[in-house]
Amino acid sequence: MNKFNRVALIGKYKSPDIREPVLSLASFLQERGVEVVIDSLTAENIKATDYRAMSLEKIAISVQLAIVLGGDGTMLNIARTLAPSDVAIVGVNQGRLGFLTDLSIEQVTKSMQPILDGKYILEKRMLLEASVNKSDGNREGVLALNDVSINKGENGGLMELEVFIDGCFAYFLRADGLIITTPTGSTAYALSAGGPILHPSLNCIGLVPVSPHTLSNRPIILKQDSVLEVKVVKAMGGRVHFDSHSHCPVKEGDALQVKNARCPIRLLHPEGHDYYSILRQKLHWSDSL
Amino acid sequence: MNKFNRVALIGKYKSPDIREPVLSLASFLQERGVEVVIDSLTAENIKATDYRAMSLEKIAISVQLAIVLGGDGTMLNIARTLAPSDVAIVGVNQGRLGFLTDLSIEQVTKSMQPILDGKYILEKRMLLEASVNKSDGNREGVLALNDVSINKGENGGLMELEVFIDGCFAYFLRADGLIITTPTGSTAYALSAGGPILHPSLNCIGLVPVSPHTLSNRPIILKQDSVLEVKVVKAMGGRVHFDSHSHCPVKEGDALQVKNARCPIRLLHPEGHDYYSILRQKLHWSDSL
Amino acid sequence: MNKFNRVALIGKYKSPDIREPVLSLASFLQERGVEVVIDSLTAENIKATDYRAMSLEKIAISVQLAIVLGGDGTMLNIARTLAPSDVAIVGVNQGRLGFLTDLSIEQVTKSMQPILDGKYILEKRMLLEASVNKSDGNREGVLALNDVSINKGENGGLMELEVFIDGCFAYFLRADGLIITTPTGSTAYALSAGGPILHPSLNCIGLVPVSPHTLSNRPIILKQDSVLEVKVVKAMGGRVHFDSHSHCPVKEGDALQVKNARCPIRLLHPEGHDYYSILRQKLHWSDSL
Amino acid sequence: MNKFNRVALIGKYKSPDIREPVLSLASFLQERGVEVVIDSLTAENIKATDYRAMSLEKIAISVQLAIVLGGDGTMLNIARTLAPSDVAIVGVNQGRLGFLTDLSIEQVTKSMQPILDGKYILEKRMLLEASVNKSDGNREGVLALNDVSINKGENGGLMELEVFIDGCFAYFLRADGLIITTPTGSTAYALSAGGPILHPSLNCIGLVPVSPHTLSNRPIILKQDSVLEVKVVKAMGGRVHFDSHSHCPVKEGDALQVKNARCPIRLLHPEGHDYYSILRQKLHWSDSL
Repeated sequence: MNKFNRVALIGKYKSPDIREPVLSLASFLQERGVEVVIDSLTAENIKATDYRAMSLEKIAISVQLAIVLGGDGTMLNIARTLAPSDVAIVGVNQGRLGFLTDLSIEQVTKSMQPILDGKYILEKRMLLEASVNKSDGNREGVLALNDVSINKGENGGLMELEVFIDGCFAYFLRADGLIITTPTGSTAYALSAGGPILHPSLNCIGLVPVSPHTLSNRPIILKQDSVLEVKVVKAMGGRVHFDSHSHCPVKEGDALQVKNARCPIRLLHPEGHDYYSILRQKLHWSDSL
Repeated sequence: MNKFNRVALIGKYKSPDIREPVLSLASFLQERGVEVVIDSLTAENIKATDYRAMSLEKIAISVQLAIVLGGDGTMLNIARTLAPSDVAIVGVNQGRLGFLTDLSIEQVTKSMQPILDGKYILEKRMLLEASVNKSDGNREGVLALNDVSINKGENGGLMELEVFIDGCFAYFLRADGLIITTPTGSTAYALSAGGPILHPSLNCIGLVPVSPHTLSNRPIILKQDSVLEVKVVKAMGGRVHFDSHSHCPVKEGDALQVKNARCPIRLLHPEGHDYYSILRQKLHWSDSL
Repeated sequence: MNKFNRVALIGKYKSPDIREPVLSLASFLQERGVEVVIDSLTAENIKATDYRAMSLEKIAISVQLAIVLGGDGTMLNIARTLAPSDVAIVGVNQGRLGFLTDLSIEQVTKSMQPILDGKYILEKRMLLEASVNKSDGNREGVLALNDVSINKGENGGLMELEVFIDGCFAYFLRADGLIITTPTGSTAYALSAGGPILHPSLNCIGLVPVSPHTLSNRPIILKQDSVLEVKVVKAMGGRVHFDSHSHCPVKEGDALQVKNARCPIRLLHPEGHDYYSILRQKLHWSDSL
Repeated sequence: MNKFNRVALIGKYKSPDIREPVLSLASFLQERGVEVVIDSLTAENIKATDYRAMSLEKIAISVQLAIVLGGDGTMLNIARTLAPSDVAIVGVNQGRLGFLTDLSIEQVTKSMQPILDGKYILEKRMLLEASVNKSDGNREGVLALNDVSINKGENGGLMELEVFIDGCFAYFLRADGLIITTPTGSTAYALSAGGPILHPSLNCIGLVPVSPHTLSNRPIILKQDSVLEVKVVKAMGGRVHFDSHSHCPVKEGDALQVKNARCPIRLLHPEGHDYYSILRQKLHWSDSL
C-alpha cells in the first residue's frame, strides 16, 4: 500500500526538456495506483492533458507529496509556495546534481518506489520571513529558503547599515551588502561571499557581509530564533533580494526585519542520502586524494 | 542576603600583579559576609595567609561561585577544571578586555554586589571532549573550552586527514591542520584560520581547515551533538592540541574523536552584559562609522 | 630659492571646512615668494578673491606643483584630471589620515618648506585607462587611479564574464563582479573583496573577483603592461565603475578593455614618508603587540 | 640541426615508474643525434647503463638542456641545483599536470622535436635566496624556487615576528607563520594560506601570513628587489622551511633574510604553452560555464 495516494508533479518553468521525464514519471506513478496531478503551468508547458491539472496553491492543500523536476532554482520557487503547507517534497535534477534536487532523472523511478512505501529520510529545512518597513509602503511576510540579501545599487556606492540582533545594536557595516542566510542558502550566495557551510540539521541564521570595508567584519552565525533588523543608513539605490529572485528597493531610513519563518519545508530523500557526498561533488572535494 | 555564601578567588598563575586585586576583592567580599576561599596556587603566589586556601579540585565541590582574575588564557585553564561541577564563574580581566573575562578590575567591586544579590545573566558555554586513539596508548576524555586542533609537525609537511561525521565519511583534507571549535573558541584560533563567529548561545561545533590545499574546503558548522572522528592518514610529526595548551603527538593510523562534553561551564555576567559590544571592541569594529 | 615658483591649491569640492586651511596655506606660500593660484571651484567655494583662480585644466599646464586638501576621494578626482600633465601633487588630509593624503593640515606648513626646497620623495603611481566597446556607442579612454570594476545590477543576478589577458582566454567568471586594480587601489575596494596589498612601487595590475561562484577564483596579479579584455556574457543591469566615481551601463556583448594609462601621477611626500606606518594605522595593525 | 647537442635526463628520485619513460625519451633523443646523459641517481635507480651517467653538479656545467621527469616536487629540487647555471629545463609530468611540469609523458616526444629545433617559449623564473642568522651558527645562501616560510612549532604556540622591508619596520605579526613566496610558489602553499596568484612574468615577492591573529594582516606583494628581514620575537619551536623541503629551527633573537636570488631558472615550454589553461585545470575553473 502506498504511503502517498496523490502526488503532484511540478516541472521547471517553461523548460522544453521537462516533458518526457514528467510524463514518464506520471505514468510510473499511475501504474502503481497513485493519483497523479500536474501543476497547471507545467501541464500547459508540456501539453499534458491526460492528468488533472492543479494550481500550486491548490496542490499545497490537496496533495501529500510533490515531486519537483528542475534545478535548485525551481525548487526554491516551489518550496516558498508550498512552505506554509505540510506537503512533502522530492527534488529531481535534470542532469546536474543540486543541493536540493539530489535525485537524477535516471534514478527517479528506482528511488520512488521505496519513498512511496514510506522508506525515506525526512529533512526539515527552515525558511526566513522578511519584511521591509518603508516610509512609502511596507512589504511584509516575504519567505526565503536560501537567503535575504541587501545589496548596493548600480551606481557603485557602498551601503551603510546598522545591524540589530534581538533588539540589541550589533554592528555598523559599510559594505557591498549583507546576506542573511539559512543553512540551505549557506552553499549558495553566502558561500561565494566567504560564509561557512551550515549543516542543514543545524537550525541557525547566518549573517555574511559582502566585501566589507572593515576587514574584521566576519560572518556571524546565530541561533534560529534570533530576530534581525537591518537599518539602512545609506543606500544609494540599494535593494533587498529574496532568494536572489524577487527584490525591493530600499532607501535611507528603511529597515529590513528577518526572522525564522516557523514553517519549514519537508524534503524527502531516498534512504542512503548522503549530504557530504553532494558537498564533495559540488565543491570538487573528491579529487584531492 | 547573599545568593552566594562562599566564593573562591583564583588568580592568574604566578602573576605578580594579581596580589592587590585579589586581596582587595577578598576584603570586599568578606565585608559583605561572604566566606572567601583562595585557590591554593594563588594563595601561595600572593602569600595570602588570612584566607582559607583550597585546591581547585576542592573548590569545584565546595563553592558555588568562583571569580577568576587574569586573562582569557587563565579562564580556559580554570574552566576546564571546574567544568564537571556546577560552580558558577565570573571572569575579571587585568586591564585588557577578554571574551571570557569581561569585567575589568576597576568595575569588579561595583559589579559584584548585584551578582551576589542574584542579579546576573547566566550563560552556559559548551566544552568539547576529545580522545586520541593511538596504537601506542590512548589519551581519553580531554576537555577543551575553545578548540581541539590537529596541526602539522615542525618538518613542514602537509597533514592528510579523513574526516567522519556521525560515522559518515565527510571529506579528505590535505592542510596545515584542522580546528574543531566551540562557539567560545570561534573568536580565537578558528577566527584567524578563516572561521565564522559563532554566537555563544548557538550550541554547535565548527570545523575550520587551516590552509587547506583544496581551496573550496570551507569551514563547516555542525549541530552540537555531532560526533567527529578524524583519521590521520599522513602526519609527519603532527600533534593534537587542546585549547592550544596541552598537546599530544599523532602518527599515521591514529584517530581523534571529538564530541560535546555534556558538562557546560556556567558563566555569570553583570546585567547589561553585551556580547556585541565586546566583539566590536576586540575586532576594532567601532571605528568604522 | 624655491624649486616650485607657482603652486596651485585645490580643496575638497564644496567643503565648508576647507576655507581656513586653504587660505592659511596660501598665505604661507605667498610669504615665501611662491605664486599661489587657486582652483576655480575651490575659489568660488571659499570666496577667495585675493588669489588668481584657475580651472583644473589650466592648472595642469601652468603649474609645477598642486596641493590637494581633502580626503583620498578628492585626490582621486584631481589626480585623474592632472594625470596627463607633469604636475607634482601633494595630498593633505582634513584630520583623518589617507593613503594618498598623508600630510595632516597641522603638519602642512612645517612639511612644505623642505618640499619647496626640493627635499621630498617622488613617487609615481600608475593609472588605468579603460574603454567600453558597446553596440550602442563606445566610451573611451577613461582614466582610473584606483580601479575599474564591473558589478552586477540591482536585480541581483550574477554577472557572467569572459576574461582575456593579452589576447589569451584566461577564465570564465560568474560573480557579483570583477575589480581591476592598480597598486593604489589595492587598499581600497579590492582589499574589501579579498585582494592583496600591492606595494605602490610594484607596477602591476590586479584582478580581484567579487564573491565568485567558483571558490578557487582567486585574485591574480599581472605585470603592468598586460592588456585586459572582459567580455560581458550576461549582465542583467550591470555597470562598469571608474574609481567608484563615474559609471557606465553594460549589457550582453559589450566588452571592457583595461590597460596601463602610461601617464602616472607624480606624488610628492615629505622625506621620512613611511608607507608601512600608514598601512599599520589604517588597518589597525599597530595594536597587536 | 639541433639547437641542443647534449641533453640531460633526470627522473623523479627513486620512482619505480620512471624507467620506461626515461629510456624511451633517451632513445628518441639519441636517434635524433643528441648526446644523452643521465643524472647519476636516476641512472642508478633505473639501471640505465647504455648512457653516460653524470652528477647534477656536473650536468649544471656540461649540458645546455635538462629534461626533468616527475612532478612539481622533483622540479623544485632539480631547479634549485641547476639554478646558478644556464641550463634550460623542460618539465615532464607523470600523468598529473603540474605547474612546472606542463608536458605529459605522452606528449613529450611530439613536443621535443620543435624544442630541439629551437622553437620554444623561454620563461625565466626567479628564486629566493635566504639566510638565517642565528646566535648558534648561521645558515646562508639557501635557494628556494617556491617559497621560504617560517612556521610555528609542534607545541602550537603562535609565532611573534617583526617584518622589515628594505630596512624599514613594516609590521609585527602574531600568526601560525609567514610565507615569503615567488610567483612560482604563489600557486602552492601561499595559495592555501590565502595569497593571490602571481603571474610568472611579474617579478615580485609575496608576503602571505598564515592564520594571522590580526584579521587585517593581508598578503602584501613587493617588487622583486625588496630585501626582507624577519626577526623572531617568539618562536617556541618554530622552523624556517625552504620549498617545504629542507628546514632549520629558529628561536627568539634569530633573524631570517630573504631576497631575490639573481639566478633565475630558464624553463622551456612548447610553443602554444598556455599558463591560464594550466590554472583552469589545476584550480577546477573550467567547469563553471
